[in-house]
Amino acid sequence: MKVKLGMKNCLYPMPTTIVGSLVNDKPNYATIAHVGIMELTTISLGMNKNHYTNQGIKENKTFSVNIPSEKIVKETDYCGLVSGKNKDKTAFFKTFFGALKTAPMIEECALNMECQLVKTVDFPHHDVFIGQIIETYCDETVLTEGAVDLGKLKPLLFAMNDRSYWGIGKKIGNAWNIGKELIT
Amino acid sequence: MKVKLGMKNCLYPMPTTIVGSLVNDKPNYATIAHVGIMELTTISLGMNKNHYTNQGIKENKTFSVNIPSEKIVKETDYCGLVSGKNKDKTAFFKTFFGALKTAPMIEECALNMECQLVKTVDFPHHDVFIGQIIETYCDETVLTEGAVDLGKLKPLLFAMNDRSYWGIGKKIGNAWNIGKELIT
Repeated sequence: MKVKLGMKNCLYPMPTTIVGSLVNDKPNYATIAHVGIMELTTISLGMNKNHYTNQGIKENKTFSVNIPSEKIVKETDYCGLVSGKNKDKTAFFKTFFGALKTAPMIEECALNMECQLVKTVDFPHHDVFIGQIIETYCDETVLTEGAVDLGKLKPLLFAMNDRSYWGIGKKIGNAWNIGKELIT
Repeated sequence: MKVKLGMKNCLYPMPTTIVGSLVNDKPNYATIAHVGIMELTTISLGMNKNHYTNQGIKENKTFSVNIPSEKIVKETDYCGLVSGKNKDKTAFFKTFFGALKTAPMIEECALNMECQLVKTVDFPHHDVFIGQIIETYCDETVLTEGAVDLGKLKPLLFAMNDRSYWGIGKKIGNAWNIGKELIT
């Protein structure tokens, strides 16, 4: 039986990311799972206006999106618990920079997307930053035949429902393929 | 070692959804995983302009976002393989309507979000529809203590990397909690 939950967002799980920006010339990181895909290489971040990281994105028009694995779940959660206003969150990570120079990235995350801000959509409580991916850096260890393998990546999946992180399960099937048998 | 993948979107997995709209007064469904969260109850759909479903969203300013489970992976994939232009995709599902009257929802999906279109962001190849969730319908069987339980929901997670669907794994820890021990 269906029950009504009210205006409840149930679009979970979402991939947990650590967003990097340079605030006052210092790298800062924030844990963000309210992300999205607009076009194929254009992604969005729904970031509460209180985040310190937002200042750096506005200032430099660049940011990074880093994908943490299960192994660094504590460090990832930590970056969502404390603010760069009063804590230096770079201590847990080795920071590197790419082509854009102002988008700090995390060596310990197997995937890093370096982004150029292309648009900001203003919401009452959130800045929605839309970025074009300029370059993606990847640990070779998470690739299978040249493609990112979620089974090796072991991303952290976030659910607001019960405020929890989940792991990835098993591959179920191929997209644009497994449903072919239903075509009449 | 890090390798460069170019402008590669690696923001996966994303939740696979089936988006519903009423096109020429008939329900239509499209499989969409390029979704996002803007504010807490505002979500986005990055939909290629070729999709038939887009017409209905533009016409009625409403849509639904339905969350399919592993059990209906074939039907879900089917809705991404064929177009409503020449196939009636409602045959596999029981359709129901809610408060908005023009956002068809799928009974067989455990979660259904009924949305009001609030903004469209235009991209070269995609309409990005931003919707406010008006009401959420949920099968009681996927709830644990009133919250949606991903272990019961068994959502389909999509990865463009190797064009595949994945299942959800195990709960790893609580957000805004598991990292507390690192706070000094």
